[in-house]
Amino acid sequence: MPEVKRLGRAGGAVFQNSMPRYEVLSEDAMATLDRGWRKLMTEIGVEFMDERALELFRQAGQRVEDNTVFLDPDFVLEQVARAPREFDVQARNPEHNIHIGGNSMAFGAVYGPPFVRQGEVRRDATMDDFTNFTKLAQSFPVLDSAGGVICEPNDTPLDSRHLDMTFALQTLTDKVYMGNVVSGVNAADTLAMTSILFGSREAIEDVPATISLINCNSPLRWDDRMLEAQFEYSAAGQPVVLTPFILMGAMSPVTIPAALVQQIVEALSGIALSQLIRPGCPVIFGSFLSNIDMQSGSPTFGTPESGIGLLCTGQIARHFGLPFRTGGGLTSSQVADAQAGYEALMTLIPTFLAGANWVMHAAGWLEGGLVAGYEKFIVDIELLQMLRHEFTPLEIDEDSMAFGAHEEVGHGGHFLGAMHTMERFRTCFYRPLLSSSDNYEKWMRGGGHDANARAEQIYRKKLDEYEQPPLDDAIRQELQEYVVRRRAELGD
Amino acid sequence: MPEVKRLGRAGGAVFQNSMPRYEVLSEDAMATLDRGWRKLMTEIGVEFMDERALELFRQAGQRVEDNTVFLDPDFVLEQVARAPREFDVQARNPEHNIHIGGNSMAFGAVYGPPFVRQGEVRRDATMDDFTNFTKLAQSFPVLDSAGGVICEPNDTPLDSRHLDMTFALQTLTDKVYMGNVVSGVNAADTLAMTSILFGSREAIEDVPATISLINCNSPLRWDDRMLEAQFEYSAAGQPVVLTPFILMGAMSPVTIPAALVQQIVEALSGIALSQLIRPGCPVIFGSFLSNIDMQSGSPTFGTPESGIGLLCTGQIARHFGLPFRTGGGLTSSQVADAQAGYEALMTLIPTFLAGANWVMHAAGWLEGGLVAGYEKFIVDIELLQMLRHEFTPLEIDEDSMAFGAHEEVGHGGHFLGAMHTMERFRTCFYRPLLSSSDNYEKWMRGGGHDANARAEQIYRKKLDEYEQPPLDDAIRQELQEYVVRRRAELGD
Repeated sequence: MPEVKRLGRAGGAVFQNSMPRYEVLSEDAMATLDRGWRKLMTEIGVEFMDERALELFRQAGQRVEDNTVFLDPDFVLEQVARAPREFDVQARNPEHNIHIGGNSMAFGAVYGPPFVRQGEVRRDATMDDFTNFTKLAQSFPVLDSAGGVICEPNDTPLDSRHLDMTFALQTLTDKVYMGNVVSGVNAADTLAMTSILFGSREAIEDVPATISLINCNSPLRWDDRMLEAQFEYSAAGQPVVLTPFILMGAMSPVTIPAALVQQIVEALSGIALSQLIRPGCPVIFGSFLSNIDMQSGSPTFGTPESGIGLLCTGQIARHFGLPFRTGGGLTSSQVADAQAGYEALMTLIPTFLAGANWVMHAAGWLEGGLVAGYEKFIVDIELLQMLRHEFTPLEIDEDSMAFGAHEEVGHGGHFLGAMHTMERFRTCFYRPLLSSSDNYEKWMRGGGHDANARAEQIYRKKLDEYEQPPLDDAIRQELQEYVVRRRAELGD
Repeated sequence: MPEVKRLGRAGGAVFQNSMPRYEVLSEDAMATLDRGWRKLMTEIGVEFMDERALELFRQAGQRVEDNTVFLDPDFVLEQVARAPREFDVQARNPEHNIHIGGNSMAFGAVYGPPFVRQGEVRRDATMDDFTNFTKLAQSFPVLDSAGGVICEPNDTPLDSRHLDMTFALQTLTDKVYMGNVVSGVNAADTLAMTSILFGSREAIEDVPATISLINCNSPLRWDDRMLEAQFEYSAAGQPVVLTPFILMGAMSPVTIPAALVQQIVEALSGIALSQLIRPGCPVIFGSFLSNIDMQSGSPTFGTPESGIGLLCTGQIARHFGLPFRTGGGLTSSQVADAQAGYEALMTLIPTFLAGANWVMHAAGWLEGGLVAGYEKFIVDIELLQMLRHEFTPLEIDEDSMAFGAHEEVGHGGHFLGAMHTMERFRTCFYRPLLSSSDNYEKWMRGGGHDANARAEQIYRKKLDEYEQPPLDDAIRQELQEYVVRRRAELGD
C-alpha cells in the first residue's frame, strides 16, 4: 500500500473541531444497519456502468452479472481498510494546504448551480459569476476552497468550459480546488493542468492537489462518465468523494434507516473500486442525503430528516474508519430570507456536531442547489464563522472565573469598565460580519436594511477589495497555452 | 417536605426529548466551576433587597451584613435538595397539563416586549396585540403556554393591566399561563384569579397552576419587587423560575466560565430562599445568558457565546438535580429576515441539545426582546415543529431497512411509486408550515413571497380560524367581577 504523505503543517490551516461528536445511534442500531447493508450489497448488489470496473471486480473474485456486482461485504471491508484514515491535500499556497480526516473540517463553496441570484434578479449563471464567486471564496478565510463548479458558466463553450473553470480556480485563488468530473477527458485535463501548477504529475501523486466529487446515480448505480473520472483521479492518487445522491422517497425508500443502509452500500462499493484502481489511494465517504416533499415531489433541504441523517452519517463513517463529506448551507428557499437562514443552519449545526471532514456547498447554496446566491453566500460565511467560534472548546481555569472582577464591581453594578473587561473587550466575543445588533433608531438611520440588503453591501465591497494571489508568470503562461491548445482540440 | 402531586397523565402532553444530551463540560471543568461558585457565594455573597428574605437567611444561620447574605454553599445545597426534581403544572384543560423536568420540554411564547412588529410597521404594543398573540399561542399545539406578558398592553391602565392580561390568558387559552411579577400585589391578584379558575386556593396548592419568572438584577442582587412576588408564589407552592439575567460584559465578566459561576450563585441563592419560604416548593433553575456587542454595548442574541453558555447551563442544572429554563428563539434582528431565522435556530438547537425543561421566548421574539413579531412568531413555530421531529429517536429495525422496496425498484430506479412508499407517504416526513420547496416557476406564480410574507398569510389565517376554548359561565363571571373590583381598588 503506498503511503500517503503528510505535509509538515498538516491540518494547521483548517478548522479543528475538538468538541464532542453528537452520536445518536445505539450499538444495537448500528448492528442492525450493519446487517442491513451486508444483505443489500450481497443480494441486490450495485451496478457499475463501466467495463473496466466490472473487470476489476471480476478479477478480485466478485460475482458479476451483466452490470451488477454482488459484492462480498468482507471483501469490501478489506478494500476500505486500505484507504487512508486521514490525508493532506496541497494548495499552491502552502498556507492553504488542508488536512482531511480526524478532527479537521474543511469547507468549500456551493457546487453545480446553473443559475445565480443577485437580490431580486435570478438568471443564468455566467463566467463573470463564476469569477466573482471564486474571488469571494478566496476572500473569506473561513472557506478552504472555492469548490469546483461553483456555478455553471453558461456563456462559455460547453466542451471546454472545464478548462476555463479550472484556470480560474487555479489563478484567482491559491486554495485547494475540485476536479472536473463530467468525463474522463475532463478529469485528465484537470490532472494535466494541476500537474502544470504544481510542477509535475509526480508532485501531485506525492501529495494530492485536487478533490473530486463522484456522485452515485442512486439507487445502487454508478454511471459511466463519473466512473471514467474516478478512474483518472484514483489512478493519479487524487482523493475522490464517493457520494450517494439520495433524496429519500425518490432515490431511496422513505425510511431514514433504509437510506442509511443504501448510502453505506453505495459509498463503500465506490470506495472498494478506488482501492482496486490504486490500492491506498485517498477516498472520502460521501453523503448527500435529504428528502423530497411527498405532496409535490420537490426536493427539500434543511429538513429534520436530513439533520438526523447527517448525524448518523458521521457516526457511520467513523464506524468504517473513513473521512467523510456531508452537510453544507442547504436550503430550498428562493431568496436569502428567514427560511434560507434557518434551513442553512439546520444543516450546518449537525455538520459541526457530526464533525464532517469535507463540507461542500458551505456557502452560496440557494433554491435546492439550482441557484448560487450572492447574498446567501454572505449569510453562510457568517454562519461558518459563528460555528467555528461555537465549536471551539471553552478554557475553564481559575483565571477565567474572574473573581477579581466581582471584587471590583460588586452587587448590582456593571462590568463595562472593569479592568478584566478592558483587557479582553476586543477579542472576547465573536464579532459578526452580517448580523446587526443596532437598536431600532440606529438601524433606521442606517437605512433600515435587512440581512439580505446588508449582505449585498458586503459582497460588493469584498469584490471591490479582492486582490489576486501572486502566481509565477511562466506557470500562468503554460496554463494559458494548455487551455488554448485543448480548446482547439475539443473543437470549441 | 410537602409532597408534590403528580398528575395522572403527567408529561403526556409536552414534548419528550429522548435524544442524548450534548454535554461539553469535562469533569475537571465542572470541578473548577464548583470551586468557583462556592468561592463567589462565600466571599462576595448575594444581595437581597427585602427584609423578610434577610431574616429568613439569618434564622437559618447565614451571615448577613446590610443587604448582603454570605451563603454557606453546603447549606445552599441542602436547600436545593429539598426542591422537587420534577413536577406537574395543571392547565384548566387537563389535555394541556404540563410536566417540568426530566426529558420533558415545555414551550411558551415571547415574554415582555413593549413593541410589536407587523411587516414594515413597528409600534407600541396594545391589548389587541396581547389578545392576538394569546390566540396564536392557543392555536399552535407546539406551544404549551402563551407565556405571561406576551407583549405590554400599553393602552391599558398601568396599575391594573396585570388583571387584563391574566383574564385574557385564562379565557382565551386553556393552557398553562405565567404569573405576574411586577409586585407582590400583582402576584397576589394572579393567585386569587388562579384560585377562582381552578376552584380554590387548595386546588392550586395541591397541584400548581402558574409558573412565574423571578429575574435577578445581575450581578448578585435580588430586587425588592421581584422578591415580593417570589414570596407570594413560593408560599402558594407555585413554581418560580429563578433567573440570572446575564448579558456578558455588562451584567457579568466577559468570560463564559465567570458568567456560568455567577449564574450558579444567583440561581441557587434564589432557590435557597424559595425553600426557606416553603420547603419543597417547586423551583426552576433559570438562565438568560447572552452577551453584549463590545463595540456598541448593544445586547446580542443567537451568538456563539450564548449557544455554548446554553449547553453548559443544561449540564450544570443536571449536576444540581434541578429542572431548568433556558433558550428560546432569540435574535437581535429588527425583522423576520435571514438573521432572525439563523439566530433563533442558533438558540433553539442548543435548547434541544441541552434538553431545557421550560423554554420561554420560544415564539415571537424579535429585536432583542423589545418587539413581539407577528411574522417571527410563525417562523419560530416552524422551527419548534421541525426540532420536535428532529429530536425524536429513530426507529431502526429490520422493517425500516425496506429491503423489499429495493427488490421492487432495482438499480437506478425511483421509489416514488413503490409499495413501501405508498404505505408511508402521508406521514413519513415532516410537513412544513412555513417553508416552501416550490420550484421557481410555481413560486413566482404564487406571487414570489418570501418567508416573511408567507408568515403574514399564516398568522392572519390562524387568527381568523381561532376558536375560544369553552369556560364555565359562572367562573368567567367571577373572574370578571374580580377584575372590575380590583381595578377600582387599584384606582384605575
